Amino acid sequence: MQTVVIAGVGLIGGSFALALRQAGFAGRILGVSSERTIRQALELNVIDAGATLEEACAQADLVYLAGPIRSILDLIPRLDGIVKPGALVTDAGSTKSMICEAGAALRRVQFLGGHPMAGKESRGVGAAEAGLFKGRPYLLTPLEPAALQTPAANEFCGWLQAIGAQQRVASPQEHDAIVACSSHLPQLLSTALASTLASHPDASSIAAAAGPGLVDSTRLALSAWEIWRDILDTNRDAILDALDLFAAEWAQLRERLNSGSLESDFEQASRFAAGLRRGAQASQNGETSS
Amino acid sequence: MQTVVIAGVGLIGGSFALALRQAGFAGRILGVSSERTIRQALELNVIDAGATLEEACAQADLVYLAGPIRSILDLIPRLDGIVKPGALVTDAGSTKSMICEAGAALRRVQFLGGHPMAGKESRGVGAAEAGLFKGRPYLLTPLEPAALQTPAANEFCGWLQAIGAQQRVASPQEHDAIVACSSHLPQLLSTALASTLASHPDASSIAAAAGPGLVDSTRLALSAWEIWRDILDTNRDAILDALDLFAAEWAQLRERLNSGSLESDFEQASRFAAGLRRGAQASQNGETSS
Repeated sequence: MQTVVIAGVGLIGGSFALALRQAGFAGRILGVSSERTIRQALELNVIDAGATLEEACAQADLVYLAGPIRSILDLIPRLDGIVKPGALVTDAGSTKSMICEAGAALRRVQFLGGHPMAGKESRGVGAAEAGLFKGRPYLLTPLEPAALQTPAANEFCGWLQAIGAQQRVASPQEHDAIVACSSHLPQLLSTALASTLASHPDASSIAAAAGPGLVDSTRLALSAWEIWRDILDTNRDAILDALDLFAAEWAQLRERLNSGSLESDFEQASRFAAGLRRGAQASQNGETSS
Repeated sequence: MQTVVIAGVGLIGGSFALALRQAGFAGRILGVSSERTIRQALELNVIDAGATLEEACAQADLVYLAGPIRSILDLIPRLDGIVKPGALVTDAGSTKSMICEAGAALRRVQFLGGHPMAGKESRGVGAAEAGLFKGRPYLLTPLEPAALQTPAANEFCGWLQAIGAQQRVASPQEHDAIVACSSHLPQLLSTALASTLASHPDASSIAAAAGPGLVDSTRLALSAWEIWRDILDTNRDAILDALDLFAAEWAQLRERLNSGSLESDFEQASRFAAGLRRGAQASQNGETSS
Protein backbone atom coordinates (compact mmCIF):
# COMPACT_ATOMS: atom_id res chain seq x y z
CA MET A 1 0.00 0.00 0.00
CA GLN A 2 1.28 3.42 -1.07
CA THR A 3 -1.15 5.93 0.31
CA VAL A 4 -3.01 5.87 3.61
CA VAL A 5 -5.80 8.31 4.40
CA ILE A 6 -6.66 9.05 8.02
CA ALA A 7 -10.13 10.56 8.28
CA GLY A 8 -10.30 12.11 11.74
CA VAL A 9 -6.76 12.85 12.92
CA GLY A 10 -7.28 12.65 16.70
CA LEU A 11 -5.69 10.46 19.36
CA ILE A 12 -6.44 7.18 17.56
CA GLY A 13 -6.01 8.30 13.94
CA GLY A 14 -2.85 10.23 14.78
CA SER A 15 -1.42 7.33 16.77
CA PHE A 16 -2.12 4.94 13.88
CA ALA A 17 -0.22 7.26 11.50
CA LEU A 18 2.74 7.54 13.90
CA ALA A 19 2.72 3.78 14.51
CA LEU A 20 2.78 3.05 10.76
CA ARG A 21 5.76 5.35 10.32
CA GLN A 22 7.63 3.80 13.20
CA ALA A 23 6.96 0.35 11.76
CA GLY A 24 8.58 1.40 8.50
CA PHE A 25 5.71 2.51 6.29
CA ALA A 26 7.34 4.57 3.54
CA GLY A 27 4.29 5.73 1.58
CA ARG A 28 2.22 8.87 1.97
CA ILE A 29 -0.15 9.57 4.87
CA LEU A 30 -2.90 12.07 4.14
CA GLY A 31 -5.15 13.56 6.80
CA VAL A 32 -8.79 14.58 6.47
CA SER A 33 -9.82 16.71 9.44
CA SER A 34 -10.63 20.26 10.45
CA GLU A 35 -8.19 22.93 9.26
CA ARG A 36 -6.92 23.45 12.79
CA THR A 37 -6.30 19.75 13.38
CA ILE A 38 -4.50 19.38 10.05
CA ARG A 39 -2.22 22.29 10.94
CA GLN A 40 -1.41 20.70 14.30
CA ALA A 41 -0.91 17.24 12.74
CA LEU A 42 1.51 18.71 10.19
CA GLU A 43 3.46 20.53 12.90
CA LEU A 44 3.75 17.27 14.85
CA ASN A 45 4.81 15.34 11.70
CA VAL A 46 1.87 12.99 12.13
CA ILE A 47 0.73 13.29 8.48
CA ASP A 48 2.39 14.32 5.22
CA ALA A 49 -0.42 16.54 3.99
CA GLY A 50 -4.02 17.50 4.51
CA ALA A 51 -6.60 16.96 1.77
CA THR A 52 -10.31 17.00 1.15
CA LEU A 53 -12.08 13.68 1.50
CA GLU A 54 -12.47 13.40 -2.29
CA GLU A 55 -8.84 14.22 -3.12
CA ALA A 56 -7.55 11.91 -0.44
CA CYS A 57 -9.80 8.95 -1.25
CA ALA A 58 -8.95 9.08 -4.95
CA GLN A 59 -5.36 8.15 -4.04
CA ALA A 60 -5.95 5.91 -1.03
CA ASP A 61 -5.05 2.25 -0.74
CA LEU A 62 -6.27 2.31 2.86
CA VAL A 63 -8.89 4.63 4.30
CA TYR A 64 -8.77 4.67 8.12
CA LEU A 65 -11.91 6.20 9.63
CA ALA A 66 -10.99 7.39 13.10
CA GLY A 67 -13.55 10.09 13.89
CA PRO A 68 -16.53 9.81 16.22
CA ILE A 69 -18.99 6.99 15.52
CA ARG A 70 -21.57 9.44 14.14
CA SER A 71 -19.07 10.84 11.64
CA ILE A 72 -18.00 7.33 10.60
CA LEU A 73 -21.64 6.44 9.91
CA ASP A 74 -22.04 9.67 7.91
CA LEU A 75 -18.85 9.13 5.91
CA ILE A 76 -19.22 5.49 4.88
CA PRO A 77 -22.06 5.96 2.33
CA ARG A 78 -20.04 8.72 0.62
CA LEU A 79 -17.00 6.52 0.03
CA ASP A 80 -18.29 4.14 -2.67
CA GLY A 81 -18.05 6.76 -5.38
CA ILE A 82 -14.72 8.27 -4.41
CA VAL A 83 -12.40 5.52 -3.10
CA LYS A 84 -10.52 3.66 -5.80
CA PRO A 85 -11.53 0.02 -6.34
CA GLY A 86 -9.41 -2.52 -4.51
CA ALA A 87 -8.75 -0.19 -1.62
CA LEU A 88 -9.68 -1.16 1.92
CA VAL A 89 -11.86 1.01 4.13
CA THR A 90 -11.56 0.32 7.85
CA ASP A 91 -12.55 2.18 11.00
CA ALA A 92 -11.72 2.47 14.67
CA GLY A 93 -15.22 3.07 16.04
CA SER A 94 -16.11 1.74 19.49
CA THR A 95 -19.26 -0.05 18.37
CA LYS A 96 -19.45 -2.24 15.29
CA SER A 97 -22.90 -3.54 14.34
CA MET A 98 -24.27 -0.35 12.81
CA ILE A 99 -20.95 0.69 11.29
CA CYS A 100 -20.39 -2.74 9.69
CA GLU A 101 -23.96 -2.75 8.39
CA ALA A 102 -23.23 0.58 6.70
CA GLY A 103 -19.91 -0.80 5.43
CA ALA A 104 -21.59 -3.87 3.95
CA ALA A 105 -23.52 -1.59 1.59
CA LEU A 106 -20.31 -0.45 -0.09
CA ARG A 107 -20.01 -2.05 -3.55
CA ARG A 108 -16.76 -0.88 -5.12
CA VAL A 109 -14.47 -1.11 -2.09
CA GLN A 110 -14.06 -3.53 0.76
CA PHE A 111 -15.01 -2.52 4.28
CA LEU A 112 -13.48 -4.16 7.37
CA GLY A 113 -14.56 -2.99 10.80
CA GLY A 114 -11.98 -2.63 13.55
CA HIS A 115 -11.66 -1.47 17.12
CA PRO A 116 -8.33 -0.87 18.85
CA MET A 117 -8.75 -1.35 22.62
CA ALA A 118 -6.36 1.46 23.33
CA GLY A 119 -6.72 4.98 24.57
CA LYS A 120 -5.83 7.36 27.31
CA GLU A 121 -7.37 10.23 29.20
CA SER A 122 -5.99 12.93 26.89
CA ARG A 123 -7.60 13.31 23.50
CA GLY A 124 -6.65 14.95 20.22
CA VAL A 125 -3.70 14.60 17.87
CA GLY A 126 -1.47 16.30 20.43
CA ALA A 127 -1.79 13.17 22.59
CA ALA A 128 -1.07 10.74 19.72
CA GLU A 129 1.82 8.34 20.20
CA ALA A 130 3.41 5.66 18.05
CA GLY A 131 3.22 3.03 20.80
CA LEU A 132 -0.48 3.38 21.62
CA PHE A 133 -1.49 0.05 20.03
CA LYS A 134 1.51 -1.94 21.15
CA GLY A 135 0.43 -4.98 23.14
CA ARG A 136 -3.20 -3.83 23.14
CA PRO A 137 -6.09 -5.91 21.75
CA TYR A 138 -7.26 -4.86 18.27
CA LEU A 139 -10.62 -6.38 17.40
CA LEU A 140 -11.43 -7.00 13.74
CA THR A 141 -15.05 -7.62 12.85
CA PRO A 142 -15.38 -9.07 9.33
CA LEU A 143 -18.91 -9.93 8.23
CA GLU A 144 -17.49 -13.25 7.05
CA PRO A 145 -14.10 -14.90 7.63
CA ALA A 146 -13.14 -14.65 3.93
CA ALA A 147 -13.08 -10.86 4.27
CA LEU A 148 -9.79 -11.20 6.14
CA GLN A 149 -8.18 -13.06 3.19
CA THR A 150 -8.36 -10.38 0.49
CA PRO A 151 -5.02 -8.83 -0.55
CA ALA A 152 -5.96 -5.45 0.91
CA ALA A 153 -7.10 -6.96 4.23
CA ASN A 154 -3.99 -9.12 4.38
CA GLU A 155 -1.76 -6.12 3.94
CA PHE A 156 -3.64 -4.13 6.58
CA CYS A 157 -3.38 -7.01 9.07
CA GLY A 158 0.33 -7.23 8.35
CA TRP A 159 0.70 -3.61 9.40
CA LEU A 160 -1.39 -4.18 12.53
CA GLN A 161 1.05 -6.91 13.44
CA ALA A 162 3.97 -4.62 12.67
CA ILE A 163 2.68 -1.96 15.07
CA GLY A 164 2.36 -4.54 17.83
CA ALA A 165 -1.44 -4.76 18.07
CA GLN A 166 -2.91 -8.07 19.32
CA GLN A 167 -5.44 -8.98 16.62
CA ARG A 168 -8.64 -10.76 17.62
CA VAL A 169 -11.59 -11.59 15.39
CA ALA A 170 -15.27 -11.37 16.32
CA SER A 171 -18.52 -10.76 14.47
CA PRO A 172 -19.85 -7.21 14.84
CA GLN A 173 -22.59 -8.50 17.15
CA GLU A 174 -20.15 -10.54 19.25
CA HIS A 175 -17.91 -7.48 19.46
CA ASP A 176 -20.74 -5.27 20.64
CA ALA A 177 -21.83 -7.76 23.29
CA ILE A 178 -18.23 -8.08 24.52
CA VAL A 179 -17.57 -4.34 24.76
CA ALA A 180 -20.96 -3.76 26.36
CA CYS A 181 -19.50 -5.80 29.25
CA SER A 182 -15.81 -4.91 29.09
CA SER A 183 -16.11 -1.19 28.43
CA HIS A 184 -19.66 0.21 28.49
CA LEU A 185 -20.67 -1.47 31.75
CA PRO A 186 -17.63 -0.11 33.69
CA GLN A 187 -18.33 3.35 32.24
CA LEU A 188 -21.95 3.35 33.34
CA LEU A 189 -21.08 1.95 36.78
CA SER A 190 -18.70 4.83 37.31
CA THR A 191 -21.28 7.33 36.08
CA ALA A 192 -24.02 5.81 38.24
CA LEU A 193 -21.76 5.72 41.31
CA ALA A 194 -20.88 9.39 40.94
CA SER A 195 -24.55 10.21 40.27
CA THR A 196 -25.70 8.28 43.33
CA LEU A 197 -23.26 10.15 45.56
CA ALA A 198 -23.87 13.53 43.91
CA SER A 199 -27.58 13.33 44.71
CA HIS A 200 -27.02 11.96 48.25
CA PRO A 201 -28.15 14.30 51.07
CA ASP A 202 -24.64 13.98 52.55
CA ALA A 203 -22.83 14.43 49.23
CA SER A 204 -20.38 16.98 50.58
CA SER A 205 -19.40 14.85 53.60
CA ILE A 206 -18.98 11.86 51.33
CA ALA A 207 -16.77 13.86 48.97
CA ALA A 208 -14.77 15.21 51.90
CA ALA A 209 -14.10 11.64 53.10
CA ALA A 210 -13.07 10.37 49.67
CA GLY A 211 -10.12 8.01 49.69
CA PRO A 212 -8.10 6.79 46.70
CA GLY A 213 -10.65 4.05 45.97
CA LEU A 214 -13.48 6.50 45.32
CA VAL A 215 -11.23 8.76 43.26
CA ASP A 216 -10.25 5.82 41.02
CA SER A 217 -13.81 4.51 40.87
CA THR A 218 -15.08 7.82 39.50
CA ARG A 219 -12.36 8.37 36.89
CA LEU A 220 -14.50 7.05 34.03
CA ALA A 221 -17.34 9.34 35.16
CA LEU A 222 -15.23 12.18 33.72
CA SER A 223 -15.63 10.75 30.18
CA ALA A 224 -16.97 13.08 27.51
CA TRP A 225 -20.69 12.83 26.84
CA GLU A 226 -20.33 13.49 23.09
CA ILE A 227 -18.36 10.26 22.72
CA TRP A 228 -20.69 8.23 24.92
CA ARG A 229 -23.84 9.57 23.30
CA ASP A 230 -22.77 7.86 20.07
CA ILE A 231 -21.77 4.64 21.82
CA LEU A 232 -25.04 4.41 23.74
CA ASP A 233 -27.05 5.26 20.60
CA THR A 234 -25.40 2.52 18.57
CA ASN A 235 -25.20 -0.28 21.15
CA ARG A 236 -28.29 0.21 23.27
CA ASP A 237 -29.61 -3.37 23.32
CA ALA A 238 -26.33 -5.03 24.25
CA ILE A 239 -25.77 -2.40 26.94
CA LEU A 240 -29.26 -2.92 28.39
CA ASP A 241 -28.46 -6.64 28.61
CA ALA A 242 -25.21 -5.86 30.43
CA LEU A 243 -27.01 -3.53 32.85
CA ASP A 244 -29.50 -6.29 33.63
CA LEU A 245 -26.75 -8.84 34.21
CA PHE A 246 -25.14 -6.47 36.67
CA ALA A 247 -28.43 -5.71 38.42
CA ALA A 248 -29.00 -9.44 38.94
CA GLU A 249 -25.49 -9.86 40.38
CA TRP A 250 -26.02 -6.83 42.63
CA ALA A 251 -29.28 -8.22 43.99
CA GLN A 252 -27.64 -11.59 44.73
CA LEU A 253 -24.68 -9.92 46.39
CA ARG A 254 -27.07 -7.91 48.55
CA GLU A 255 -28.83 -11.08 49.58
CA ARG A 256 -25.56 -12.83 50.48
CA LEU A 257 -24.37 -9.77 52.42
CA ASN A 258 -27.63 -9.69 54.34
CA SER A 259 -27.82 -13.33 55.24
CA GLY A 260 -24.58 -15.05 54.35
CA SER A 261 -21.03 -14.20 53.39
CA LEU A 262 -19.37 -12.46 50.45
CA GLU A 263 -16.24 -14.54 50.75
CA SER A 264 -16.84 -16.43 47.52
CA ASP A 265 -17.75 -13.18 45.72
CA PHE A 266 -14.46 -11.65 46.81
CA GLU A 267 -12.53 -14.76 45.78
CA GLN A 268 -14.09 -15.00 42.34
CA ALA A 269 -13.76 -11.26 41.70
CA SER A 270 -10.18 -11.14 42.86
CA ARG A 271 -9.24 -14.09 40.64
CA PHE A 272 -10.81 -12.42 37.60
CA ALA A 273 -9.17 -9.05 38.34
CA ALA A 274 -5.77 -10.68 38.82
CA GLY A 275 -6.21 -12.59 35.56
CA LEU A 276 -6.97 -9.36 33.69
CA ARG A 277 -3.72 -7.90 34.98
CA ARG A 278 -1.70 -10.95 33.99
CA GLY A 279 -3.24 -10.73 30.51
CA ALA A 280 -2.46 -7.02 30.22
CA GLN A 281 1.07 -7.64 31.46
CA ALA A 282 1.66 -10.46 28.99
CA SER A 283 0.40 -8.27 26.13
CA GLN A 284 2.64 -5.38 27.14
CA ASN A 285 5.60 -7.74 27.09
CA GLY A 286 4.71 -8.74 23.56
CA GLU A 287 3.67 -12.29 24.46
CA THR A 288 0.79 -13.88 22.64
CA SER A 289 -2.29 -14.46 24.75
CA SER A 290 -3.80 -17.88 24.37
CA MET B 1 2.77 13.00 75.77
CA GLN B 2 5.92 10.97 76.45
CA THR B 3 5.13 7.44 75.36
CA VAL B 4 3.05 6.27 72.41
CA VAL B 5 2.03 2.65 71.95
CA ILE B 6 1.17 1.37 68.50
CA ALA B 7 -0.86 -1.84 68.73
CA GLY B 8 -0.69 -3.36 65.25
CA VAL B 9 2.41 -2.07 63.48
CA GLY B 10 1.27 -2.37 59.87
CA LEU B 11 0.88 0.20 57.10
CA ILE B 12 -1.29 2.58 59.16
CA GLY B 13 0.28 2.06 62.58
CA GLY B 14 3.79 2.20 61.14
CA SER B 15 3.00 5.31 59.12
CA PHE B 16 1.57 7.03 62.19
CA ALA B 17 4.79 6.30 64.09
CA LEU B 18 6.95 7.62 61.23
CA ALA B 19 4.73 10.68 60.83
CA LEU B 20 4.98 11.50 64.57
CA ARG B 21 8.76 11.30 64.39
CA GLN B 22 8.93 13.48 61.32
CA ALA B 23 6.68 16.04 63.03
CA GLY B 24 9.13 16.26 65.92
CA PHE B 25 7.78 13.81 68.51
CA ALA B 26 10.72 13.19 70.85
CA GLY B 27 9.22 10.60 73.22
CA ARG B 28 9.24 6.81 73.01
CA ILE B 29 7.24 4.78 70.51
CA LEU B 30 6.54 1.18 71.54
CA GLY B 31 5.11 -1.43 69.21
CA VAL B 32 2.79 -4.32 70.08
CA SER B 33 2.68 -6.78 67.19
CA SER B 34 3.86 -10.22 66.18
CA GLU B 35 7.51 -10.98 66.79
CA ARG B 36 8.26 -10.88 63.09
CA THR B 37 6.58 -7.51 62.59
CA ILE B 38 8.39 -6.02 65.61
CA ARG B 39 11.73 -7.20 64.18
CA GLN B 40 10.92 -5.60 60.84
CA ALA B 41 9.64 -2.38 62.47
CA LEU B 42 12.85 -2.11 64.51
CA GLU B 43 15.01 -2.67 61.42
CA LEU B 44 13.10 0.10 59.63
CA ASN B 45 13.39 2.45 62.64
CA VAL B 46 9.62 2.71 62.83
CA ILE B 47 9.46 2.00 66.60
CA ASP B 48 11.91 2.27 69.49
CA ALA B 49 11.07 -1.08 71.04
CA GLY B 50 8.62 -3.93 71.06
CA ALA B 51 6.68 -4.80 74.20
CA THR B 52 3.79 -6.89 75.44
CA LEU B 53 0.44 -5.16 75.56
CA GLU B 54 0.58 -4.97 79.36
CA GLU B 55 4.11 -3.57 79.55
CA ALA B 56 3.43 -1.05 76.82
CA CYS B 57 0.08 0.17 78.15
CA ALA B 58 1.45 0.72 81.64
CA GLN B 59 3.70 3.46 80.24
CA ALA B 60 1.46 4.81 77.47
CA ASP B 61 0.09 8.35 77.23
CA LEU B 62 -1.46 7.42 73.88
CA VAL B 63 -2.53 3.94 72.75
CA TYR B 64 -3.04 3.81 68.97
CA LEU B 65 -4.97 0.69 67.92
CA ALA B 66 -4.12 0.06 64.28
CA GLY B 67 -4.81 -3.63 63.77
CA PRO B 68 -7.78 -5.21 61.97
CA ILE B 69 -11.26 -4.23 63.23
CA ARG B 70 -11.73 -7.62 64.89
CA SER B 71 -8.52 -7.26 66.86
CA ILE B 72 -9.43 -3.70 67.90
CA LEU B 73 -12.76 -5.00 69.21
CA ASP B 74 -10.95 -7.77 71.08
CA LEU B 75 -8.34 -5.43 72.57
CA ILE B 76 -10.51 -2.58 73.86
CA PRO B 77 -12.13 -4.44 76.80
CA ARG B 78 -8.66 -5.52 77.98
CA LEU B 79 -7.33 -1.95 78.21
CA ASP B 80 -9.25 -0.57 81.18
CA GLY B 81 -7.17 -2.46 83.69
CA ILE B 82 -3.77 -1.89 82.10
CA VAL B 83 -3.63 1.61 80.60
CA LYS B 84 -2.71 4.35 83.07
CA PRO B 85 -5.51 6.78 83.94
CA GLY B 86 -5.52 10.02 81.94
CA ALA B 87 -4.14 8.32 78.82
CA LEU B 88 -6.02 8.41 75.53
CA VAL B 89 -6.94 5.28 73.60
CA THR B 90 -7.69 5.84 69.92
CA ASP B 91 -7.97 3.58 66.90
CA ALA B 92 -7.74 3.64 63.13
CA GLY B 93 -10.46 1.12 62.29
CA SER B 94 -12.51 1.55 59.11
CA THR B 95 -15.90 1.30 60.85
CA LYS B 96 -16.75 3.14 64.02
CA SER B 97 -20.14 2.32 65.58
CA MET B 98 -19.21 -1.01 67.15
CA ILE B 99 -15.69 0.09 68.04
CA CYS B 100 -16.89 3.30 69.72
CA GLU B 101 -19.55 1.37 71.58
CA ALA B 102 -16.82 -0.89 72.95
CA GLY B 103 -14.70 2.19 73.72
CA ALA B 104 -17.53 3.85 75.62
CA ALA B 105 -17.44 1.01 78.14
CA LEU B 106 -13.90 1.97 79.24
CA ARG B 107 -14.02 3.61 82.66
CA ARG B 108 -10.44 4.52 83.65
CA VAL B 109 -9.20 5.86 80.29
CA GLN B 110 -10.71 7.96 77.53
CA PHE B 111 -11.49 6.41 74.15
CA LEU B 112 -11.69 8.48 70.95
CA GLY B 113 -12.48 6.74 67.68
CA GLY B 114 -10.63 7.75 64.53
CA HIS B 115 -10.31 6.80 60.88
CA PRO B 116 -7.56 8.08 58.63
CA MET B 117 -8.79 8.06 55.01
CA ALA B 118 -5.39 7.05 53.76
CA GLY B 119 -3.93 3.90 52.39
CA LYS B 120 -2.29 2.28 49.45
CA GLU B 121 -2.22 -1.04 47.69
CA SER B 122 0.78 -2.39 49.60
CA ARG B 123 0.25 -3.44 53.19
CA GLY B 124 2.47 -4.09 56.17
CA VAL B 125 5.06 -2.05 58.01
CA GLY B 126 7.40 -2.30 55.02
CA ALA B 127 5.02 -0.02 53.12
CA ALA B 128 4.71 2.53 55.95
CA GLU B 129 5.63 6.13 55.13
CA ALA B 130 5.76 9.33 57.14
CA GLY B 131 3.68 11.27 54.59
CA LEU B 132 0.74 8.85 54.37
CA PHE B 133 -1.70 11.10 56.27
CA LYS B 134 -0.57 14.39 54.80
CA GLY B 135 -3.46 16.20 53.16
CA ARG B 136 -5.78 13.21 53.71
CA PRO B 137 -9.06 13.38 55.67
CA TYR B 138 -8.83 12.00 59.23
CA LEU B 139 -12.26 11.42 60.74
CA LEU B 140 -12.67 11.65 64.50
CA THR B 141 -15.82 10.17 66.01
CA PRO B 142 -16.32 11.36 69.60
CA LEU B 143 -19.49 10.14 71.30
CA GLU B 144 -20.02 13.73 72.44
CA PRO B 145 -18.28 16.98 71.38
CA ALA B 146 -16.74 17.50 74.84
CA ALA B 147 -14.61 14.40 74.32
CA LEU B 148 -12.44 16.44 71.94
CA GLN B 149 -11.70 19.01 74.65
CA THR B 150 -9.91 16.83 77.20
CA PRO B 151 -6.16 17.49 77.62
CA ALA B 152 -5.26 14.10 76.14
CA ALA B 153 -7.57 14.54 73.12
CA ASN B 154 -6.29 18.07 72.60
CA GLU B 155 -2.73 16.88 72.50
CA PHE B 156 -3.56 14.03 70.11
CA CYS B 157 -5.38 16.43 67.75
CA GLY B 158 -2.37 18.73 67.86
CA TRP B 159 -0.21 15.88 66.60
CA LEU B 160 -2.75 15.04 63.89
CA GLN B 161 -2.46 18.62 62.72
CA ALA B 162 1.33 18.43 62.87
CA ILE B 163 1.39 15.37 60.60
CA GLY B 164 -0.77 17.19 58.04
CA ALA B 165 -4.03 15.22 58.45
CA GLN B 166 -7.28 17.06 57.65
CA GLN B 167 -9.40 16.51 60.77
CA ARG B 168 -13.15 16.15 60.42
CA VAL B 169 -15.64 15.27 63.12
CA ALA B 170 -18.67 13.00 62.80
CA SER B 171 -20.66 10.76 65.10
CA PRO B 172 -19.81 7.04 64.77
CA GLN B 173 -23.15 6.47 63.01
CA GLU B 174 -22.65 9.40 60.64
CA HIS B 175 -19.14 8.14 59.92
CA ASP B 176 -20.39 4.66 59.11
CA ALA B 177 -23.10 5.97 56.78
CA ILE B 178 -20.57 8.20 55.00
CA VAL B 179 -17.96 5.48 54.48
CA ALA B 180 -20.67 3.01 53.40
CA CYS B 181 -21.08 5.37 50.44
CA SER B 182 -17.56 6.71 49.95
CA SER B 183 -15.62 3.51 50.45
CA HIS B 184 -17.71 0.36 50.91
CA LEU B 185 -19.99 1.00 47.93
CA PRO B 186 -17.09 1.51 45.47
CA GLN B 187 -15.47 -1.67 46.83
CA LEU B 188 -18.59 -3.77 46.34
CA LEU B 189 -19.22 -2.29 42.88
CA SER B 190 -15.76 -3.35 41.80
CA THR B 191 -16.24 -6.82 43.32
CA ALA B 192 -19.67 -7.19 41.71
CA LEU B 193 -18.37 -6.01 38.32
CA ALA B 194 -15.54 -8.54 38.37
CA SER B 195 -17.95 -11.24 39.58
CA THR B 196 -20.46 -10.43 36.84
CA LEU B 197 -17.79 -10.72 34.17
CA ALA B 198 -16.13 -13.78 35.72
CA SER B 199 -19.37 -15.73 35.53
CA HIS B 200 -20.27 -14.47 32.03
CA PRO B 201 -20.32 -17.18 29.32
CA ASP B 202 -17.89 -15.01 27.29
CA ALA B 203 -15.64 -14.20 30.26
CA SER B 204 -12.44 -15.00 28.40
CA SER B 205 -13.33 -12.83 25.37
CA ILE B 206 -14.28 -10.01 27.71
CA ALA B 207 -10.99 -10.32 29.57
CA ALA B 208 -9.09 -10.45 26.28
CA ALA B 209 -10.74 -7.20 25.17
CA ALA B 210 -10.06 -5.38 28.44
CA GLY B 211 -9.02 -1.78 28.06
CA PRO B 212 -7.57 0.51 30.74
CA GLY B 213 -11.08 1.39 31.99
CA LEU B 214 -11.87 -2.20 32.98
CA VAL B 215 -8.45 -2.69 34.54
CA ASP B 216 -8.94 0.40 36.73
CA SER B 217 -12.55 -0.53 37.52
CA THR B 218 -11.49 -3.91 38.91
CA ARG B 219 -8.56 -2.68 41.02
CA LEU B 220 -10.57 -2.66 44.25
CA ALA B 221 -11.77 -6.20 43.48
CA LEU B 222 -8.23 -7.29 44.42
CA SER B 223 -8.78 -6.17 48.03
CA ALA B 224 -8.14 -8.71 50.77
CA TRP B 225 -11.19 -10.58 52.04
CA GLU B 226 -9.91 -10.73 55.63
CA ILE B 227 -10.06 -6.92 55.85
CA TRP B 228 -13.45 -6.67 54.18
CA ARG B 229 -14.99 -9.46 56.22
CA ASP B 230 -14.56 -7.29 59.33
CA ILE B 231 -15.85 -4.14 57.60
CA LEU B 232 -18.94 -5.90 56.26
CA ASP B 233 -19.58 -7.58 59.62
CA THR B 234 -19.45 -4.28 61.50
CA ASN B 235 -21.29 -1.98 59.07
CA ARG B 236 -23.87 -4.23 57.45
CA ASP B 237 -26.96 -2.01 57.79
CA ALA B 238 -25.37 1.15 56.43
CA ILE B 239 -23.89 -0.85 53.55
CA LEU B 240 -27.23 -2.46 52.71
CA ASP B 241 -28.70 1.06 52.55
CA ALA B 242 -25.93 2.16 50.19
CA LEU B 243 -26.48 -0.92 47.99
CA ASP B 244 -30.17 -0.06 47.76
CA LEU B 245 -29.47 3.56 46.87
CA PHE B 246 -27.23 2.39 44.07
CA ALA B 247 -29.75 -0.18 42.84
CA ALA B 248 -32.39 2.55 42.59
CA GLU B 249 -30.01 4.81 40.63
CA TRP B 250 -29.10 1.90 38.35
CA ALA B 251 -32.76 1.15 37.61
CA GLN B 252 -33.43 4.80 36.78
CA LEU B 253 -30.36 5.02 34.58
CA ARG B 254 -31.52 1.90 32.72
CA GLU B 255 -34.90 3.49 32.16
CA ARG B 256 -33.38 6.71 30.82
CA LEU B 257 -31.00 4.75 28.56
CA ASN B 258 -33.92 2.77 27.21
CA SER B 259 -36.27 5.63 26.52
CA GLY B 260 -34.43 8.90 26.97
CA SER B 261 -30.92 10.24 27.30
CA LEU B 262 -28.14 9.88 29.84
CA GLU B 263 -26.81 13.36 29.14
CA SER B 264 -27.84 14.75 32.53
CA ASP B 265 -26.46 11.63 34.28
CA PHE B 266 -23.10 12.16 32.60
CA GLU B 267 -23.10 15.88 33.45
CA GLN B 268 -23.96 15.37 37.12
CA ALA B 269 -21.51 12.49 37.50
CA SER B 270 -18.71 14.35 35.76
CA ARG B 271 -19.23 17.42 37.96
CA PHE B 272 -19.09 15.32 41.11
CA ALA B 273 -15.99 13.40 39.95
CA ALA B 274 -14.22 16.64 39.00
CA GLY B 275 -15.12 18.15 42.39
CA LEU B 276 -13.63 15.14 44.20
CA ARG B 277 -10.37 15.70 42.34
CA ARG B 278 -10.30 19.41 43.13
CA GLY B 279 -10.88 18.55 46.80
CA ALA B 280 -8.13 15.93 46.77
CA GLN B 281 -5.81 18.37 45.03
CA ALA B 282 -6.53 21.17 47.51
CA SER B 283 -5.88 18.78 50.42
CA GLN B 284 -2.60 17.60 48.92
CA ASN B 285 -1.54 21.23 48.63
CA GLY B 286 -2.26 21.69 52.32
CA GLU B 287 -5.23 23.99 51.79
CA THR B 288 -8.17 23.75 54.16
CA SER B 289 -11.33 22.40 52.59
CA SER B 290 -14.39 24.43 53.29
